[in-house]
Amino acid sequence: MLVVELIEKKKLGRELTDAEIDYLVANFALGAIPDYQMAALLMATYFKGVNDREGRRFLHAMIHSGEQLSYPNIPARKVDKHSTGGVGDKTSLIIAPVVAEAGIPVPMISGRALGHTGGTLDKLESIPGLSVRLTHRELESILKKYNCVFGAQTDSLVPADRKLYALRDVTSTVEIPPLIAASILSKKIAEGTDALAMDVKIGSGGFLPDEDSARELALRLVEWSRAYNVETIAFGTDMNEPLGNTAGNGPEIEECLRILQTGSGEPRLLEISTLLGATMLQLGGVSKSQHEAREKFTDILKSGKAYTRFQRIAEAQGAIPESWKMFESGVPASFEREIKSSKDGFIGEILPRDIGYALVDLGAGRRVASDPVDPSAGVRFFKKRGDRVASGEPLALAQWSSESANSPAALARIETAFVITESQPVPRPLVYFRTDANGASAYKS
Amino acid sequence: MLVVELIEKKKLGRELTDAEIDYLVANFALGAIPDYQMAALLMATYFKGVNDREGRRFLHAMIHSGEQLSYPNIPARKVDKHSTGGVGDKTSLIIAPVVAEAGIPVPMISGRALGHTGGTLDKLESIPGLSVRLTHRELESILKKYNCVFGAQTDSLVPADRKLYALRDVTSTVEIPPLIAASILSKKIAEGTDALAMDVKIGSGGFLPDEDSARELALRLVEWSRAYNVETIAFGTDMNEPLGNTAGNGPEIEECLRILQTGSGEPRLLEISTLLGATMLQLGGVSKSQHEAREKFTDILKSGKAYTRFQRIAEAQGAIPESWKMFESGVPASFEREIKSSKDGFIGEILPRDIGYALVDLGAGRRVASDPVDPSAGVRFFKKRGDRVASGEPLALAQWSSESANSPAALARIETAFVITESQPVPRPLVYFRTDANGASAYKS
Repeated sequence: MLVVELIEKKKLGRELTDAEIDYLVANFALGAIPDYQMAALLMATYFKGVNDREGRRFLHAMIHSGEQLSYPNIPARKVDKHSTGGVGDKTSLIIAPVVAEAGIPVPMISGRALGHTGGTLDKLESIPGLSVRLTHRELESILKKYNCVFGAQTDSLVPADRKLYALRDVTSTVEIPPLIAASILSKKIAEGTDALAMDVKIGSGGFLPDEDSARELALRLVEWSRAYNVETIAFGTDMNEPLGNTAGNGPEIEECLRILQTGSGEPRLLEISTLLGATMLQLGGVSKSQHEAREKFTDILKSGKAYTRFQRIAEAQGAIPESWKMFESGVPASFEREIKSSKDGFIGEILPRDIGYALVDLGAGRRVASDPVDPSAGVRFFKKRGDRVASGEPLALAQWSSESANSPAALARIETAFVITESQPVPRPLVYFRTDANGASAYKS
Repeated sequence: MLVVELIEKKKLGRELTDAEIDYLVANFALGAIPDYQMAALLMATYFKGVNDREGRRFLHAMIHSGEQLSYPNIPARKVDKHSTGGVGDKTSLIIAPVVAEAGIPVPMISGRALGHTGGTLDKLESIPGLSVRLTHRELESILKKYNCVFGAQTDSLVPADRKLYALRDVTSTVEIPPLIAASILSKKIAEGTDALAMDVKIGSGGFLPDEDSARELALRLVEWSRAYNVETIAFGTDMNEPLGNTAGNGPEIEECLRILQTGSGEPRLLEISTLLGATMLQLGGVSKSQHEAREKFTDILKSGKAYTRFQRIAEAQGAIPESWKMFESGVPASFEREIKSSKDGFIGEILPRDIGYALVDLGAGRRVASDPVDPSAGVRFFKKRGDRVASGEPLALAQWSSESANSPAALARIETAFVITESQPVPRPLVYFRTDANGASAYKS
């Protein structure tokens, strides 16, 4: 098979056969097809698309490019949660210990920060001592003991996806919808989950610009995962503003721990956590109805037991027990600066992309994969969308510890992110739709 | 400047600025921009195109990516000839010594075989001892002494073009018309010619499928080269059948030497050589009219002086004088096989692409740049398009010397290439148009 002929074929808008897709993905993963040929193929695919059969075959080939995990010693139905990514999106860390406390194994394998969005792994690594680089044996042992584990994608898990993802990121070929679905599902199916609650983020703070593309992705995730006996329920939720009262790795862990400890927190963050967590309880067969599941989720959260469980899991992964005091008293940073309102009015918007890029400037995110991350860097929001504000009143606090952070740029970006309006903005929906095997339905939370 | 943002810009169909194109081309030539990003940009360019300004800037940046040759010791107006490439297209080797004999310096820097088309350098290297790897000093010295030299593109001459060309070849991004023009002209302008006769090949044996795309390319070559004070006249000529009575490196040199020695040969080959050669005499200021130029070209060709000149140039480049006897008595090969007609009729077509790929199978061409070439391999045509043929009559002879040649495939392809028809085919034009600074005009040779 000549790769240049396969590029030509896709360039002319023709379909690739299953055998051709298998060949491309397997040989690319092995390094036998050079990046430049795959880059040309990806760009041709951006323009000419792939149909449903081709997309499903990409998924199949990606799953088979590496090891597939299974947990024969953990017979219970495993349920995971995934988000397409946003700013301040920390729900995984709240949901996972609650669901685990309810008796459902959560084999959570997560990614790192990309562009303006945060990554669960980077957040976890702001806990001193904690490691996410676990072997399959370690993953299984912690999962068996605590019903939950937080791992990083290893070299042997869907290597084709890891290579494709990195290449798409630097060649402006991320926005190929079927390949986005294949990338998400390949990891989740290879990690060995039996069911999946998906949070598809809609709006300027995520990667999906509008509700239509989010609905399309959600439906594809539900349908494609079914072919692997993975039951998926997907929600389209709002990402036009940062989620919760913090953004940045250490500060977000601090916010999660407080919610796990007290059972209360910022309402939108709490609602999305409850929605997805309750869905996982249903998917795991622990609760019969959404109503019952929500009650159970809230009960566990308020009991504080999930806080203790989270601490035990983190300690099993190397976290130093002294860490918890540090988070309870607030993550310290060498530098901090308040951002104040320049006028009276209402918070009309907090633009999430500006906050995301400010985090990168502060050292909380990455420009390239090898950048180090400052765990203390972040933003604390004193005001949220819809709040009234007076001139001179503090809107947010930026904090960071690295001398080399580009704090002037970050502070300017945070100021820009706050759009002050004369009248109170119209409230925005939090959840747009719910998609399961029966299709999409409107959702009112 | 972030390359991924430039890819994104082109992907969305926006124009690149001059500074952005300069940055891309210069850094790609230096190896600072990886192949995979350039491959993605090229594929986006295939779909979204580049406008005239962008194309001219690519040319500018490519010329400036390396050394530019000049010949201060050769004050006369230098004239070169270039063809977009075809099967059996050997006119350069006939024209150059004739034009040189008329007093015009011809600084000919040529390329190698690509895909199904032959390359002037490979043909020249079938002359034992001859080297085309010359330094600038050697080029200048031979050019000054003989008014003609045959060189290979050095590492320092338009490195951006060499790298781009190789990348486009393996990523299915060759057919980007403004980049084809930039590639051709960058080499010719950097080699230091003052005028250029262009042969734009139209038909299945070349790279341009139809007359419209050939006219577009011709006009672009004429207009863009004018900005560098290079006067170009371009012809659109037929490449729907192999040119001349041979195809393959050694056999083609043999055919050229016979024409230079005797002044006669296959009519279409002789006509295109005369047309382009006469145009060079006009471009060089030696002849006033096309009529006068054609007479002069023919007189020199019939005098045999160009044959002697070609021998002296070749010997200055290392050719062994004993070579000429070998060519006079016919290039020998270890194996040969006749291809015979299976029925009575007329030669309706000799499909050039099949002949080109048969040459690759015989070892006369290359699959990848590092393939060795068999100088003896080739095809001799006994019948040409329009000739009457009887069942069992020989159509062609295939010859080769390498045991590892795929001769069964080659012989089958040659048989397929000959399309035998019941009635005599309608003659096809040889020259479709002529384009100069005043635009295109119909041309009747």
